[in-house]
Parts: sequence; C-alpha cells; structure tokens
Amino acid sequence: MSRGLLLVVEGAEGVGKTTQVARLADRLVALGIRAERYREPGGTPLGDEIRRLLLEPAAHGVSPRAEALLFMAARAQLVAQLEARLREGTIVLLDRFFLSTYAYQIAGRGLDEMLVRDANQLAVGGLTPDLTLLLTVDPGVAQARMHARGGLDRMEREDAAFHARVSAAFLAAADGSWQAAHPEAGPVQQIDAGGSVDEVAARIDAALKSRWPETFSGLGESL
Amino acid sequence: MSRGLLLVVEGAEGVGKTTQVARLADRLVALGIRAERYREPGGTPLGDEIRRLLLEPAAHGVSPRAEALLFMAARAQLVAQLEARLREGTIVLLDRFFLSTYAYQIAGRGLDEMLVRDANQLAVGGLTPDLTLLLTVDPGVAQARMHARGGLDRMEREDAAFHARVSAAFLAAADGSWQAAHPEAGPVQQIDAGGSVDEVAARIDAALKSRWPETFSGLGESL
Repeated sequence: MSRGLLLVVEGAEGVGKTTQVARLADRLVALGIRAERYREPGGTPLGDEIRRLLLEPAAHGVSPRAEALLFMAARAQLVAQLEARLREGTIVLLDRFFLSTYAYQIAGRGLDEMLVRDANQLAVGGLTPDLTLLLTVDPGVAQARMHARGGLDRMEREDAAFHARVSAAFLAAADGSWQAAHPEAGPVQQIDAGGSVDEVAARIDAALKSRWPETFSGLGESL
Repeated sequence: MSRGLLLVVEGAEGVGKTTQVARLADRLVALGIRAERYREPGGTPLGDEIRRLLLEPAAHGVSPRAEALLFMAARAQLVAQLEARLREGTIVLLDRFFLSTYAYQIAGRGLDEMLVRDANQLAVGGLTPDLTLLLTVDPGVAQARMHARGGLDRMEREDAAFHARVSAAFLAAADGSWQAAHPEAGPVQQIDAGGSVDEVAARIDAALKSRWPETFSGLGESL
C-alpha cells in the first residue's frame, strides 16, 4: 500500500477552514478514499486536554512562550499518530499546522522565529505536509463569518493589531520566497476562500486534481 | 531592593531534593529571609495541570517529544512568575530545572540535544540559575529511598537502563567542561547527599555561605 498524503488547510479565523475540511473529508470518503480529519490543537486525548488549556477564554493567563510550547506539545503527540495513518495509506486532512505557528506565535506574539521553529522541529520530527491549502479571503469577510459563528475563543478575542499581524503572515506564506526559506512548511497553495462554500470546495478539488490527477480523479465530477 | 537569587536543587530520584528544598526554605524564613519554594513541573495553575498530564502513571501514552515540550511549557509559565519574585528580592528555591531536562529528555529519552536546548531557551528567555545544587548519592541508596517512599510516578517507573542514563547525565553536569558547554545551566555545585538529612542540609548551608557570605551568614549557626 502506498503512503497517504498529509493535506493541511490553513488560514486566519473565519476563512472557512473547518467547514472545508469536513466537506472535503465527506467527498473523499464518498469516493471510497480512506480519509480522516484532524485539527490542531487536538486530535489525541492529550491534545484535547491541551486544547482545553489553551483556548478557554479564562485560560490561566497562559504566557506567550508557554502557549507556543503547549501548541508544540499537542503537535508532537498528534504527529506520532498521523505518521501511523500515513503509513497505512490514509489521506490525512489537518485543520492548522506549521503556518498557524508562524502566523500566531511568531508574527502575532512576536516570539523568536528560530527558537519557535526549532521547537516545531522537535514536535514534528521530519514530517512535512504534502500540500498546504492556504485559504485567504478579504479580512472584512472573515471577521463577519467569525462573529456570525459567535462564542469566540481566547485567540479570537485578541485585538485588531494582533489579527492584522496574523493575516499578513498568512499572506506572506503564499509567497514562493517565504516557502523556500521555510522548508518545514512544504508546498503551499493559496485558495481564494471568497464566495459560497461550494465555490471554495470546487477550487480545492481543482487544486488537488491538478497536483495528484490519479488519486483525486473522481473529485468535483458531481459539482 | 536588590534582586533575589534563583537556587535550583537537582539530582536523580531518591537523592532527597524535595526534603532539602523544604528544609532550606524553613531555615531561610526562620532567619527572616524572604524565600519561596517551587517545583517543576508545577508552581503555577497551568503548571499543575501539566504536571498531572505528565506524571500520572496512566498518562495518555505521552510521546517523548510531547513530554519534553510539556515540561518546557510548564517551565515557561513558571519562569514568568519567578522573574517577578526575583525582582522583588525573593530567594527562589526550585526543585528541578534545566539539569533535569538534560538528564531525562536528552540523555534518558535520547531526544536531539540542540532542539531540546532551543525549546528550553524559548521557555526560559534569559533566566539562568544563580546556583544549582546537584545532590548526588550512591545509586543503591537513591533506589532504596525512592522505593521506601512508594507511589512511583510515570518517570520513576522507567526501566533501569533509562535511570542509568539519567544518573550518568547528572554526574556529567558536575563537570566544569559540561558547564562551560551548557551556559544556560549556570554554575553547578555538587553536594554529597549521603548520610542524614541534617548532614546534607549542613553541606548545603556551607555551600551557600561560601558563595554569598553576607546573605547567608546566619545559616548553619544552630546546627
């Protein structure tokens, strides 16, 4: 059995990551492709406990450095599990990974880039995404989607300057020179997340079919 | 008000760290010196939750990488608090710090030394102990003390080869060349932890008085 693929979906709050990951998992499973979805932080019992520590709005006054290291701990635990799934040939869909670390901990919190990248390296070992789909949308649209959803978590409650740094960092990651300087991110493809859920899903299908025509030949045929 | 001191007490399980830290705190407070004791992992509400995740014998099958990063997250949260205490002039007594990371995560678990040291750097910022008191005792004595205490935690249940690597790493840290290569550890002074609790306490007092005669002039006078 051939190795699976690690497909990461990234982007700022409100771009529709979680919706698109769920829809894509459903489409793949309907095609008989073995696919599983995970999210960060979480995806393991330990990761879910860490998620609770990190995202509760009342989260213990977690320091930025502790926050970064907790995210990396949850990642380390998840990666051990994903490696096994990938070896079994599973297509793993992952809601957030290294790009979120770059955007939130390095750009947003202003932590030392090399130290955070080394902590990430400790977490992931050698695992690199086969593709990161970076969903981008006009910040006003994302804000509106985020507030429509309600129940903002601790990261979502950060101020506008923080979210501006995060958005700028995600956009930077769409650039080839950024990707060359950050090999741990693997290839990144920007996806326009404007429009309807079906329109964004069709763009994701097209991106996957263009990169792996054989694996994803059935995608998008009913759209 | 002058800055306090960060005094770390280190050593393998069963050498008597926790007992000596508690006794030393009592002696200092009896002398009217502002002293507080902390332990790793722990010392903060977040750190206590992490301690629970790490040390419960049934701890979720935590991967070695996740374990190291959880320790570092607890440390980051604690360091933010200790910095404030040190600025207030408090003598901070800390049960475990970087030497334990070196012994358990690098030597014991075999994780990449540079990545773990960078994660530690992310956790501590620039905070370096003013002195680490490294308690060492014959491994047979330590094992006997540990088993007499009972209720072994997840680290204590590791096998003999793991504990041998840990013990060897602690001994290595007593060496000047190791300390020169690991400046984040700060100065390390080996203390013979054989004999009675009072005998070990007297050795600790002597070490502190020799290094800071003025601050610790009252120590050991009633022994």
